Amino acid sequence: MAQLNDNYLKLRAGYLFPEIARRVKAFCDANPAVKERLIRCGIGDVTEPLPEAVRAAMHRAVDDMGRRESFHGYGPEQGYEWLREAIAKNDFRNHGLDVAADEIFVSDGSKCDTGNILDVLGAENRIAVTDPVYPVYVDTNVMAGHTGEANEAGAYAGLVYLEGNEGNGFVPEVPKEKVDVIYLCFPNNPTGAVATREQLTQWVEYARANEAIILFDAAYEAYISDPALPHSIYEIPGARECAIEFRSFSKNGGFTGVRCALTVVPKTLMASTRSGEKKPLHPLWNRRMSTKFNGASYIVQRGAEALYSSEGKREVRALLDHYMGNARILREAVAKRGLGVWGGENAPYIWVKTPGGISSWAMFDKMLQEANVVITPGSGFGSAGEGYFRISAFNSRANAEEVARRIAALAW
Amino acid sequence: MAQLNDNYLKLRAGYLFPEIARRVKAFCDANPAVKERLIRCGIGDVTEPLPEAVRAAMHRAVDDMGRRESFHGYGPEQGYEWLREAIAKNDFRNHGLDVAADEIFVSDGSKCDTGNILDVLGAENRIAVTDPVYPVYVDTNVMAGHTGEANEAGAYAGLVYLEGNEGNGFVPEVPKEKVDVIYLCFPNNPTGAVATREQLTQWVEYARANEAIILFDAAYEAYISDPALPHSIYEIPGARECAIEFRSFSKNGGFTGVRCALTVVPKTLMASTRSGEKKPLHPLWNRRMSTKFNGASYIVQRGAEALYSSEGKREVRALLDHYMGNARILREAVAKRGLGVWGGENAPYIWVKTPGGISSWAMFDKMLQEANVVITPGSGFGSAGEGYFRISAFNSRANAEEVARRIAALAW
Repeated sequence: MAQLNDNYLKLRAGYLFPEIARRVKAFCDANPAVKERLIRCGIGDVTEPLPEAVRAAMHRAVDDMGRRESFHGYGPEQGYEWLREAIAKNDFRNHGLDVAADEIFVSDGSKCDTGNILDVLGAENRIAVTDPVYPVYVDTNVMAGHTGEANEAGAYAGLVYLEGNEGNGFVPEVPKEKVDVIYLCFPNNPTGAVATREQLTQWVEYARANEAIILFDAAYEAYISDPALPHSIYEIPGARECAIEFRSFSKNGGFTGVRCALTVVPKTLMASTRSGEKKPLHPLWNRRMSTKFNGASYIVQRGAEALYSSEGKREVRALLDHYMGNARILREAVAKRGLGVWGGENAPYIWVKTPGGISSWAMFDKMLQEANVVITPGSGFGSAGEGYFRISAFNSRANAEEVARRIAALAW
Repeated sequence: MAQLNDNYLKLRAGYLFPEIARRVKAFCDANPAVKERLIRCGIGDVTEPLPEAVRAAMHRAVDDMGRRESFHGYGPEQGYEWLREAIAKNDFRNHGLDVAADEIFVSDGSKCDTGNILDVLGAENRIAVTDPVYPVYVDTNVMAGHTGEANEAGAYAGLVYLEGNEGNGFVPEVPKEKVDVIYLCFPNNPTGAVATREQLTQWVEYARANEAIILFDAAYEAYISDPALPHSIYEIPGARECAIEFRSFSKNGGFTGVRCALTVVPKTLMASTRSGEKKPLHPLWNRRMSTKFNGASYIVQRGAEALYSSEGKREVRALLDHYMGNARILREAVAKRGLGVWGGENAPYIWVKTPGGISSWAMFDKMLQEANVVITPGSGFGSAGEGYFRISAFNSRANAEEVARRIAALAW
């Protein structure tokens, strides 16, 4: 009889965001008047219009598809050369970083890429994730059979959890033990923490010493304003030998609904066969993408290319300034209430300690019911997130200001 | 040390189409004058402009993204309700088929879906594929570790190959042995064969008797003109208990570069846990898509929706008629030369026996060098394809007619 993948049965109830959606729907159904007042600062989804330069490029691309001579069928699975080259130039070469166009794989999203990357890695790797953590890293490892069962706190046997806490400013230290694959995300989702050059250097040195691979999620790099902070893992010497970097157009260009991202797999990055032979991962990822993917939409890739035009860059800058203006307002609002607060300075997320030590989900319910504001409970990102909550700065200015007012008025 | 997925090392040199591209490039580099004359009937990629209705819808969708009130960020990972409903109504309910909107998962491509479906299936399933076969079914099973090594003919140990041949009209019979998962593709890529209702009924009965799952690839169903032939596996009683169906907008709407497809996972389809408990696959696929995918592009989904408008349907009909006109011309051209020919009547592929028993790749080289026409060697689809080649009808009418003339003039 056909068998299913039993590993899926280990997954804990609902991915975080569906559970939030369920609670919000239940509350709104019971209190229809709330619907009008509800402000969502939960899921990290952009809210502002797509840049004009992107829309103009996509209109042109749609028109291209209407003429036989400029029609585009199957594109290269790795992405069009013109987009890979624009990325290599603008995101890497112009910053003195050694990343070639053919080391860049254009995809339809970083969530897909950070999940799919496991396809090319072996089943015996010891995997480390931070705690709190973006749930996709954990869940995809559970699905792939890299873990045992979850304990009561939701931690899976077999995974190494690296705790982020107030002591380390939510940037976990390198582990004492040996691991093979490490997921890092800076600027961090959910805490908004950003690793310094020194901290990332320690990670790269650890990875090289242990022949480990760092899966570096840089989806929020555009939000870094402090010039001392690294945007890319490849700013760290040696990272080309030990790191894969994920980037996305979702949060800089507002592409969450458009769908485009990229993964950098340096040709110098090696991993071991079972027999101990070292081989580059680049051909494996190339084969994976050629076989299980058919390229991102031509229209979408033309839109992404436009983000690198001077007009596109100006509009992205304005979007970032807008969201970071919100972040300042929200950060100040919680700080004024005397709550512990992290992030929100080089990241669009504000990480807040709950008042009076109440639980994350209690705070979620309180914010939903009393302020009609949706936040994300920190415990949804792992047990080290218990007692914290995340506020997303992705919103209109008016909404951010209204949330600040409601936080000021909230009783606890 | 970080380990790679050793299964990738079992994969045979290059996926078929990259190898074709390599040979074409080498020949054109050595014979620059050929470039002008070259006609591609190799890869099954559409050539004609995208329907006006689709482009108009995508223009509107791009404009939606420019206004805050109609901006779309993250959509449902399963696809927008309006598209799932349009599919359920037009592709299934209107044909009397019992498929609900929430059994339809919209994606960015059938190649992705047919590969990704293995995520939710167990590692111990006995897998059957037809021979010849669309290489993605085989390669993704190799990658997932479901096979041993390939033999000299390119057949992988552990897979059950079901031979299509002239005797069975390239519709393989159900196996005598027990298998758990079967890939079927009708209208077939590459042979153009279409299973009759009786043949599919045998498959469904086999699957139900053996508690096997049929992975039914219906990417080319729109090309069926014979009213007696089934378009969907769900036309066969009992299929909801044993079949997943893949559909695509690539070949009907011309979406190969736009990227949109769908997978139907009936809620009534069960598979077994290791302990022998039966559970539905629908929640597993839902979880897979929620965790490792972020929905198809909003703009693309609006384009796909427009295929179901009356204008869209009319334009799709014209595209199908165009390509099937080509198929008739090409089919007649090879038939006139006395070659054995299959397909091309309810499918956009013509499957041809090589003249004088020469090999598929020898025929590929002959067509490339003497006719400057790119075809696909049958052996690239499996050892049972040796001695055959595939001609794709995806082309302009002028090119199809020119290919027919060159076939008429070819010496052998």
